[in-house]
Amino acid sequence: MPIPAANLYPPFNITRLSHVEYGVTDLAASRTFYVDILGLQVTHEDDSRIYLRAMEERGHHCIILRQSDHAGVACLGFKLYDTPDLEKAAAFFEGKSLPVEWIERPFMGPSLRTRDPWGVPLEFYVKMDRLPPIHQQYRLYNGVKPLRIDHFNMFSANVDAAVAFYGEMGFRVTEYTEDDDSGRVWAAWMHRKGGVHDVAFTNGTGPRLHHTAFWVPTPLNIIDLLDLMSTTGYVANIERGPGRHGISNAFFLYVRDPDGHRIEIYCSDYQTCDADLEPIKWSLTDPQRQTLWGAPAPRSWFEEGSLFDGAETRDSDLKAQPIIAP
Amino acid sequence: MPIPAANLYPPFNITRLSHVEYGVTDLAASRTFYVDILGLQVTHEDDSRIYLRAMEERGHHCIILRQSDHAGVACLGFKLYDTPDLEKAAAFFEGKSLPVEWIERPFMGPSLRTRDPWGVPLEFYVKMDRLPPIHQQYRLYNGVKPLRIDHFNMFSANVDAAVAFYGEMGFRVTEYTEDDDSGRVWAAWMHRKGGVHDVAFTNGTGPRLHHTAFWVPTPLNIIDLLDLMSTTGYVANIERGPGRHGISNAFFLYVRDPDGHRIEIYCSDYQTCDADLEPIKWSLTDPQRQTLWGAPAPRSWFEEGSLFDGAETRDSDLKAQPIIAP
Amino acid sequence: MPIPAANLYPPFNITRLSHVEYGVTDLAASRTFYVDILGLQVTHEDDSRIYLRAMEERGHHCIILRQSDHAGVACLGFKLYDTPDLEKAAAFFEGKSLPVEWIERPFMGPSLRTRDPWGVPLEFYVKMDRLPPIHQQYRLYNGVKPLRIDHFNMFSANVDAAVAFYGEMGFRVTEYTEDDDSGRVWAAWMHRKGGVHDVAFTNGTGPRLHHTAFWVPTPLNIIDLLDLMSTTGYVANIERGPGRHGISNAFFLYVRDPDGHRIEIYCSDYQTCDADLEPIKWSLTDPQRQTLWGAPAPRSWFEEGSLFDGAETRDSDLKAQPIIAP
Amino acid sequence: MPIPAANLYPPFNITRLSHVEYGVTDLAASRTFYVDILGLQVTHEDDSRIYLRAMEERGHHCIILRQSDHAGVACLGFKLYDTPDLEKAAAFFEGKSLPVEWIERPFMGPSLRTRDPWGVPLEFYVKMDRLPPIHQQYRLYNGVKPLRIDHFNMFSANVDAAVAFYGEMGFRVTEYTEDDDSGRVWAAWMHRKGGVHDVAFTNGTGPRLHHTAFWVPTPLNIIDLLDLMSTTGYVANIERGPGRHGISNAFFLYVRDPDGHRIEIYCSDYQTCDADLEPIKWSLTDPQRQTLWGAPAPRSWFEEGSLFDGAETRDSDLKAQPIIAP
Repeated sequence: MPIPAANLYPPFNITRLSHVEYGVTDLAASRTFYVDILGLQVTHEDDSRIYLRAMEERGHHCIILRQSDHAGVACLGFKLYDTPDLEKAAAFFEGKSLPVEWIERPFMGPSLRTRDPWGVPLEFYVKMDRLPPIHQQYRLYNGVKPLRIDHFNMFSANVDAAVAFYGEMGFRVTEYTEDDDSGRVWAAWMHRKGGVHDVAFTNGTGPRLHHTAFWVPTPLNIIDLLDLMSTTGYVANIERGPGRHGISNAFFLYVRDPDGHRIEIYCSDYQTCDADLEPIKWSLTDPQRQTLWGAPAPRSWFEEGSLFDGAETRDSDLKAQPIIAP
Repeated sequence: MPIPAANLYPPFNITRLSHVEYGVTDLAASRTFYVDILGLQVTHEDDSRIYLRAMEERGHHCIILRQSDHAGVACLGFKLYDTPDLEKAAAFFEGKSLPVEWIERPFMGPSLRTRDPWGVPLEFYVKMDRLPPIHQQYRLYNGVKPLRIDHFNMFSANVDAAVAFYGEMGFRVTEYTEDDDSGRVWAAWMHRKGGVHDVAFTNGTGPRLHHTAFWVPTPLNIIDLLDLMSTTGYVANIERGPGRHGISNAFFLYVRDPDGHRIEIYCSDYQTCDADLEPIKWSLTDPQRQTLWGAPAPRSWFEEGSLFDGAETRDSDLKAQPIIAP
Repeated sequence: MPIPAANLYPPFNITRLSHVEYGVTDLAASRTFYVDILGLQVTHEDDSRIYLRAMEERGHHCIILRQSDHAGVACLGFKLYDTPDLEKAAAFFEGKSLPVEWIERPFMGPSLRTRDPWGVPLEFYVKMDRLPPIHQQYRLYNGVKPLRIDHFNMFSANVDAAVAFYGEMGFRVTEYTEDDDSGRVWAAWMHRKGGVHDVAFTNGTGPRLHHTAFWVPTPLNIIDLLDLMSTTGYVANIERGPGRHGISNAFFLYVRDPDGHRIEIYCSDYQTCDADLEPIKWSLTDPQRQTLWGAPAPRSWFEEGSLFDGAETRDSDLKAQPIIAP
Repeated sequence: MPIPAANLYPPFNITRLSHVEYGVTDLAASRTFYVDILGLQVTHEDDSRIYLRAMEERGHHCIILRQSDHAGVACLGFKLYDTPDLEKAAAFFEGKSLPVEWIERPFMGPSLRTRDPWGVPLEFYVKMDRLPPIHQQYRLYNGVKPLRIDHFNMFSANVDAAVAFYGEMGFRVTEYTEDDDSGRVWAAWMHRKGGVHDVAFTNGTGPRLHHTAFWVPTPLNIIDLLDLMSTTGYVANIERGPGRHGISNAFFLYVRDPDGHRIEIYCSDYQTCDADLEPIKWSLTDPQRQTLWGAPAPRSWFEEGSLFDGAETRDSDLKAQPIIAP
């Protein structure tokens, strides 16, 4: 299926991805990982939840860690442009017969909870509590110096259909991988905020969250994180990288949190705000697609992901084979 | 005057700054500077003009160098979102009794030429010839490895009024400097594309172009440029920096091209796409405003700028005094 | 066998490793690799030889590429402190019944050619033609910006014996790997010039040259090389890395030249000039020994190396098994 | 006076500079600066003294901070190669009618205290308590990530004579500045350990300590320190830089501790171990001598320094004028 043309006039205006809520089985261990190792800042915590923000963010949180009996993802949050967009979003999802619910969320104004057609729990809002800027409080920088949440990447059992649905909402494809044999889309990267992506879909058993990514200042910060993790007991949490992506051209590292949730550390992609940006197409058989430097990803990277609460997974019928490290 | 609230529904949709045309008095000397030293890529050249693009750009050009008998700025170009925005832009400027002209521009689709109320020549378009991506052609990276044009900064004899006018067009203030005594705005930074600014205004004799800025991957690239310039005969072209800005938090360097046009090399500012982003206010007397590390800018930085063709300058009546290096 | 105590009063004074001569089968292809990709500077070339130096070196050459019908290593060169050291070196090798020959070498003063007990061809000299400094000619920096030759690493069929012999010459052990089962030394790193090593020995079929290493300014330069190699047709020449070594703590990358000669790009090790520096011992079974970040080296890294002209290899009888990537 | 030829066979063997003892007037304030801001590690502390080491050092300390009623420098320490060098050092200084005293120093073996001909208190030793390596304890890295002490730079009222004396001890000149008018040496950089310098002398009222320098991994670490200092109340402690030196080619920053003692943060100089290294000569009137990028040093940099306990200063009779920032 061809990549749909960008929808320049979506039914409601999504500014950017905003936050993710992870169920974690050991809140203290997760706190250590996200705060002491990655360097996110605690904005609120109690016995069951920790709210975190990154260094240049002024919204109250980009990650919520919630003590749970199982690891999972409660929702992916997106910030809308302005108040009228809330009702428009509700109308869009109701028009698709998707569940729509108005909820109260701590530190946030009115929020809409819904699911995409495959069950991914989505949350939309306009107002989140604002905090003072800390981007120049250099004493606070720690770990990998995470600056902001950058994107979500999801396993999808039907990437073509996911691209079509999210495309209706105004996400625009910047790069994609095509399976030469079937002509179907293996993976796609889609943005709202002007970088390579806010969301991405990768063929596989889905829906599952493949990873959440954070933007950092330079590749040297990623090297610092590797040095830190490998000498503080987290060497087993290093999954893939560092390296330079073919797709996106970003410098990356993938790590796994104490529950196995995958986090990507990411920098140096490119500006995509032009409405007429032409998506870059890659072939699934291109060995430089995932890592420009050639090293294939490990099997775990292709197979493991985080389950969304309340969303049953389904296998993909697209059986093409990516290049996997032995 | 207070900073106006962001206009979330401007009359037409400007995606981003796009390009600048400089009149230069020695095209060959300018070519050497922009291509061999800064590292921009030539996309077209003839006896009188050189078109250049930066490494991640796919639009045909971000700078036009035009052989001229005098140094000046012919226009500042901005890319619009979609075709209907052209007519809307024309209507906006006509409604302000500002001159509107449809022009043919090489390598570009229909273009609108106009002036802001102070005479700054502006150019708006939707389509520019697209070129193949070169961001992964690492053999081509040279000089400071410029990735994209980032912003324009203009001297303005009435920053409050400039902020109001550009604010009507949808530019949103991210940071500004207030003169405590008068309560007037000394300088303001305004964006469309989600970084700290696409345009900025600094109090002074205006309108004049203070500088055009390029985004680079890391501060080490700026250090590389300083090493290169200082050992290839361009040490006198280094004007100010390197340093960390207070305003914007970006790492910067200011250099002067062979005609004295000022170019800023810039990286590491922050994401501003949230509609409810609160502008950060600075006091004119804050010594860390311009350089977080304290070093004041030289007098030339406050006084020298490039003239816009066809725009007479006027002195500002705001006589507050910034901190100037001795 | 225990690591011998440092010989603080060796029979002659070796300042540092100096140069290597590689037989290469396609001089033009090698020239492209070492000059255009790595960034070494040509100091002399003719139909059969190319002499290269790195950016902060003032000796005439650190690498000689010699057109040959087979790939091999003609010699490893070492610079001696002062003229009397030449005769002392000759006496040392003669005293060991090792072959000693005075030879004329282009661009060099009197040179002693000999072999270590395993046949490695060694060359010692005091004077090499001196060239003007180019370390501040920033226009010349290219590729990975190699600053100087840093070390040689050799496969040895008897590392304990190699350590003893080179130890007599004054090389001091900074780090070593012990095979817990046998108590024998699997690998050792030995220095003269105050870094982690000038020479190193790794258990395996030997003698063969495992690699020659170059020092670069920062890890970002190594990332630049990876980006360049992977987009100019050299992705297959990337063998291992980038990464942080456990041993030496250096940031590294291993690449293979067109003949398969292995080159390491290396930075950030530590100062070792203290006579009482205690060697750091690692266990062969420590998964962080080779890469602090855990990724094991590929089989090729353990098995492939360059033959020394005129030196027959012998298998090692030390059959311990390092950790090899699948 | 010409630069003396290198003394390749000095009367005793100095391995490297080792440590400095500073008298400080507020031990707690100094602790905050050296530990929390610069990132040095405390190895011992009590009510009156704090011993610090840098991240790759295994000797017990490189700095001693001693509570005092006045700011000053108690001694500059140097490590000798081997035990016999202690007696040889004593004989050398006694032969010059300079005071020689054997002293007990905490955490050190037998130590020789003496003074150079101008009264600079020098300390020589062979053994210092050794500590476990911490260079791979990445959790401990902080501040500017100082790796090791790199050099001392002293004001001297007679640089020619200082160069001659230290040259007798085996320090070898790598770079120097000549005053064209008088032919005298304005400044000189001299090494033992193979970098650009262990000691340097700068014309001025002397003897006074101009600065102590620390080596860091990359220029980005220096930028990190500037960001940290400027946002934690230390912006006034930033004296000069960052920049690229002409002399040494190192990337540098000069800061002042709470007592005004000057500390240089330094990286990326070059290897100098060759006995026949030719000193690089600079002219005092070369504007790129001190900063390759052209920016002159402030007056304070030329005039202010730390007094050595018990050493009276004398003005220099060399009245040439360096280039000073207005």
